[in-house]
Amino acid sequence: MLQNIRVVLVNTSHPGNIGGAARAMKNMGLSRLVLVDPEDFPSSEAVARASGATDILDGAIVVGTLEEALVGCNVALGTSARDRRIPWPLLDPRECATTALQQVELGGEVALVFGREYAGLTNDELQRCQFHVHIPSNPEFSSLNLAAAVQVLAYEVRMAWLAAEGQPTKMSKLETTAMLNTQPVTTDELELFYGHLEGVLVEIGFLDPASPRHLMSRLRRLYGRSGISKLEMNILRGVLTETQKAVRGESHKRRKDDV
Amino acid sequence: MLQNIRVVLVNTSHPGNIGGAARAMKNMGLSRLVLVDPEDFPSSEAVARASGATDILDGAIVVGTLEEALVGCNVALGTSARDRRIPWPLLDPRECATTALQQVELGGEVALVFGREYAGLTNDELQRCQFHVHIPSNPEFSSLNLAAAVQVLAYEVRMAWLAAEGQPTKMSKLETTAMLNTQPVTTDELELFYGHLEGVLVEIGFLDPASPRHLMSRLRRLYGRSGISKLEMNILRGVLTETQKAVRGESHKRRKDDV
Repeated sequence: MLQNIRVVLVNTSHPGNIGGAARAMKNMGLSRLVLVDPEDFPSSEAVARASGATDILDGAIVVGTLEEALVGCNVALGTSARDRRIPWPLLDPRECATTALQQVELGGEVALVFGREYAGLTNDELQRCQFHVHIPSNPEFSSLNLAAAVQVLAYEVRMAWLAAEGQPTKMSKLETTAMLNTQPVTTDELELFYGHLEGVLVEIGFLDPASPRHLMSRLRRLYGRSGISKLEMNILRGVLTETQKAVRGESHKRRKDDV
Repeated sequence: MLQNIRVVLVNTSHPGNIGGAARAMKNMGLSRLVLVDPEDFPSSEAVARASGATDILDGAIVVGTLEEALVGCNVALGTSARDRRIPWPLLDPRECATTALQQVELGGEVALVFGREYAGLTNDELQRCQFHVHIPSNPEFSSLNLAAAVQVLAYEVRMAWLAAEGQPTKMSKLETTAMLNTQPVTTDELELFYGHLEGVLVEIGFLDPASPRHLMSRLRRLYGRSGISKLEMNILRGVLTETQKAVRGESHKRRKDDV
């Protein structure tokens, strides 16, 4: 299960932190590292700090954008130090681990996303994450070292995983999702949906591209926390497509799909 | 209470680890650092890795033996990577934090003791600790970086402390309410929405009233579990209204609502 959890480091400045993160991951049994536009990688400093976890570094995937890093993911959890203007579903590390484990138990893919050393994740990046994770810290000295943050989340994932392995019959709130009985959508499918939705909202005159306000982020928050299944996504996309046809005055046939 | 918990680092080789430990401590609200016979301290490398937690380094007490480091302590908890020949009370990091908090709540003094980077604590040193703490880790790659180990235990102490204080473990105590920013909708408002939605789906030709299948119940399940706020409901209803106008070819003005 742990192999379905990837650690995504966005735009890391210091290669030592990449090495430290790799070591923390391997210590906790995580293996998949994705680097978004790292400033300096590969690097001997990363190898030194990895202290033997070089297999994690060797297997790391380097991509250009967070979007690419999240391809195939069902849930992305983004670490966030700050209060944002639009509050988002916020988890502590323990809840983050529970959420991640529930997802992988359903066969999903999970990303733990960590931002830049000084600036964290941008608002745009945070909005690609369904959940934000805040590591509780001293308000007067709140910024953890990047590898230390990876260590805390990876540790909680391991604790949750050990608990899950020890008590396999313990069903938490999986019931809800399991009840839905279908696969969850991936984050890239969600992004395609948001793009489609935005286009339709502009087309029907509800969203003014010149003055979008917070409309899309509010809708992202709503749908992001809903745990949409693939079947439900098909319905939502179908609604959007039919809306476009109707607005454009195209002749539309009843859909024959069994929904 | 946290000021009654000291972190003891025994015979540390790398000053960078002392700095990293100081940063992790301060992040988690711990302040008392005791160094037993460090190889290189004070050190600019420690200051660099402390990343602003220099007050912890400046206040660090340097002693010659673990015995001196533990003066005045009621409970010492020693980190241990390996199974020892003599079985000892062994705690995981969460139990360690609970034990530490119970002790300080009683007015006691607690030490969290960390060994050498490569060799850990000696058997003699471990026997001076009432409890051993093992951070669960990958059996094939079990040795954590020293600062990472301090981070994990300090994090668990903070989690336990926040719980004891009755404080939220998340930045925002407003979790649910602030997350949604407004009141949740009532069931009758939800029903009005479903009625409106159904009408629009018929109007755009997505729903055939003669053969509705399970479409509406699937949408009810999706929106029903999302905990929609009043603000979000206004958005969704607005989308439906604009869709109707657009489909009917009515001239539509941009909505001026602050969404």
